[in-house]
Amino acid sequence: MQIDLKQCCMLLATAEDIWIFTHKNPDGDTLGSAYGLYYGLTAIGKRAAVLCSDSMPKKFGYFYPQGPMPDFEPQYIVAVDVADIQLLGPALEPYAHKIDLCIDHHISNTGYAEHLLLDSHAAATAEIVYEIVTAMGVSLTQPMATALYTGIATDTGCFRYSNTTAQTHFRAAKLIEAGIDITYMNQLLFETKSKGRIALERLAMSTLEYAFHQRCATIVLSREMVAQSGAEDEDIDGISSMPRQIEGVEVGATLRERKEGGYKVSVRTARSVDASEICKRLGGGGHKAAAGCVISGTLDEARRKLYEAIGAQLGEQ
Amino acid sequence: MQIDLKQCCMLLATAEDIWIFTHKNPDGDTLGSAYGLYYGLTAIGKRAAVLCSDSMPKKFGYFYPQGPMPDFEPQYIVAVDVADIQLLGPALEPYAHKIDLCIDHHISNTGYAEHLLLDSHAAATAEIVYEIVTAMGVSLTQPMATALYTGIATDTGCFRYSNTTAQTHFRAAKLIEAGIDITYMNQLLFETKSKGRIALERLAMSTLEYAFHQRCATIVLSREMVAQSGAEDEDIDGISSMPRQIEGVEVGATLRERKEGGYKVSVRTARSVDASEICKRLGGGGHKAAAGCVISGTLDEARRKLYEAIGAQLGEQ
Repeated sequence: MQIDLKQCCMLLATAEDIWIFTHKNPDGDTLGSAYGLYYGLTAIGKRAAVLCSDSMPKKFGYFYPQGPMPDFEPQYIVAVDVADIQLLGPALEPYAHKIDLCIDHHISNTGYAEHLLLDSHAAATAEIVYEIVTAMGVSLTQPMATALYTGIATDTGCFRYSNTTAQTHFRAAKLIEAGIDITYMNQLLFETKSKGRIALERLAMSTLEYAFHQRCATIVLSREMVAQSGAEDEDIDGISSMPRQIEGVEVGATLRERKEGGYKVSVRTARSVDASEICKRLGGGGHKAAAGCVISGTLDEARRKLYEAIGAQLGEQ
Repeated sequence: MQIDLKQCCMLLATAEDIWIFTHKNPDGDTLGSAYGLYYGLTAIGKRAAVLCSDSMPKKFGYFYPQGPMPDFEPQYIVAVDVADIQLLGPALEPYAHKIDLCIDHHISNTGYAEHLLLDSHAAATAEIVYEIVTAMGVSLTQPMATALYTGIATDTGCFRYSNTTAQTHFRAAKLIEAGIDITYMNQLLFETKSKGRIALERLAMSTLEYAFHQRCATIVLSREMVAQSGAEDEDIDGISSMPRQIEGVEVGATLRERKEGGYKVSVRTARSVDASEICKRLGGGGHKAAAGCVISGTLDEARRKLYEAIGAQLGEQ
């Protein structure tokens, strides 16, 4: 059942011994939301603990509390930023049908929880948690504001993405007023690349190829390049956006060699071109600005098929 | 004479036929401030024109008004984001001692104007212009808000840099409420790299060298690489920050070969290390996080001297 902010605050005010679940492969928003809520609930005297199927990324260690989470049996379970029970991961799945409250911003939320507070206009679930803790009368502390700022900043690419609203900035302003160190966070979150990423970027850029009067740029990530660089999956995600970022390029594509043969293709476009139309021609799909597909065959074959689809969309041969 | 916001608004309310000066080599803040003020003044029936010693960068064309600026003799001259008359550039220098009002956020402002509205806590001069136009009762229009947002976003690295305050976010929120397209702007301003920059990055990354247990990373930009890539000076500025952005790297340095021999060295550091101390040892200087110096000799000699200075600061041999 969907509830509003006030009902959510009342449920939390009466709850005791609260477990807070994040999604698996936790990102800045699910962790920032979970710890933001954790600090908020403990500030009003609740016993609470954050649980995640995966280990907590060290990167976000600057807002974790000191020491281990308290060990207790829950009377109330809250999931934050978890759109579907499949995203809970193996360790938390046994509790999938016992979740009392879900706080989320994904329009795709499956409504698995007893109560759902959903705001699909929020750029980050952390924005909703900010509204909850302040509506509950909790004073923002530095750790709380740091966790919530992290959620907002990571889900908006530091206020760059189209999901950023005036409300996002208002909430960020209030969090900054709590005295947090945004310089440290932003450097860590947005200006740091892993050595694996740097190595893979270097290899990938040596494969850069322009087509269609430089309106299109492609790069290739072979399995050998990925292995040699030591890059992780999250590094590869970042690299996929590189070709499109070149001035004048309307279609950027990354061809990643698959273990099982063929290429996984990621297409990013400027707003003059529809990426999903390109990928649909190749049996894939996605959004207007970002889509994907799988193309079988050798690199030459995959590139030829991809260029046919891109050329058709650009009105070029 | 320094004045406050209210006095500034009164001066502008009584002024007629207003020239608005930007600084030379105009950036997003001086242009965004100038056009934001231009739109504000014309909205209340003033005749105004923006003037710049250099040509207006096409990049910011999305907030320029249609057609040429009106041609008239000024009765009042305002300079925005211009800290010193030397920054006016040749075409505007003849008016250096006739400037009635300066609106600026640089603490180093030399006070050359008859009246100065200075707010050194503002991350961008566009923040101050936002306060002026709203205090004058002007309704924010889309072009006005677009220009002012550009000034704020460019001077804060899209809200990443340490100059970003709660006020910066509050003002951005108000500008977004005017209905501007931040997605388009942010993609253009923060996610687009010139082909020259891409080419130079590729060449520069092939020179990447780690030292001191990977606590230090250096890249080299030879004159041949710069020429071959077709990169501009602004491209090179961006590349200088790359070595420091590698995970775990505390000191990043870029050695750029000089026409007159030797190397211009740019040093960027994580907050554990003082870049200005490293550069002082080599006859240069700068800030804690970013400093520079010139080292004579061959590349090998320059690197050796640089490593000595860095090693001393890192406590490594």
